[in-house]
Amino acid sequence: MPLLDAPCCVSSGDAAMAPAEAETLAKTLKALADPARLRIVSIIAAQDAGATCACDLQEPLGLSQPTVSHHTKVLVDAGILTREKRGTWAYFSLVPGALDRVAAAIAPRP
Amino acid sequence: MPLLDAPCCVSSGDAAMAPAEAETLAKTLKALADPARLRIVSIIAAQDAGATCACDLQEPLGLSQPTVSHHTKVLVDAGILTREKRGTWAYFSLVPGALDRVAAAIAPRP
Repeated sequence: MPLLDAPCCVSSGDAAMAPAEAETLAKTLKALADPARLRIVSIIAAQDAGATCACDLQEPLGLSQPTVSHHTKVLVDAGILTREKRGTWAYFSLVPGALDRVAAAIAPRP
Repeated sequence: MPLLDAPCCVSSGDAAMAPAEAETLAKTLKALADPARLRIVSIIAAQDAGATCACDLQEPLGLSQPTVSHHTKVLVDAGILTREKRGTWAYFSLVPGALDRVAAAIAPRP
């Protein structure tokens, strides 16, 4: 008899994240939700200035060039990294504010 | 001739997130990377105090009780929510600090 004992008197719908926002955030989180991609982002984020060469991602992570390319493509497509070709190598930078926006969407700061 | 023109002179391995930390964070992000689960978390996070009844999640999100149960179980298993049974219904609360820790791991605050 759920209708009799249901304490469902609080209207909580207004508090819910909007469906479109939830879809977008879920896609970005899926792009980040991989150990190799988190480690790639951490290396690129640690650069004080300038871009990180794809060649500097392979050895510390123990990944092949195709694997690094796959992961960086997912992160570029998700709007987390930008990619610039210089001669033989691709160079990657964080999209300014992208990680801050994800963090703020997960845990709004006071 | 990658060996000749490679600009691979920066040791970036030290900057990489540790493998175990990346594995753990990836699992938590996977749990969050779903539109319905993000909306469930947003409703529970908006409660000023106290827990949120599962019955208050179904209607605003347009989800069945089994679907809500599935999603809340994923979030409990990921350490984001706690679950408490009260009579007919389960009540959910955020694990204190859990979302802040995820946000800080994604975008460390200065």
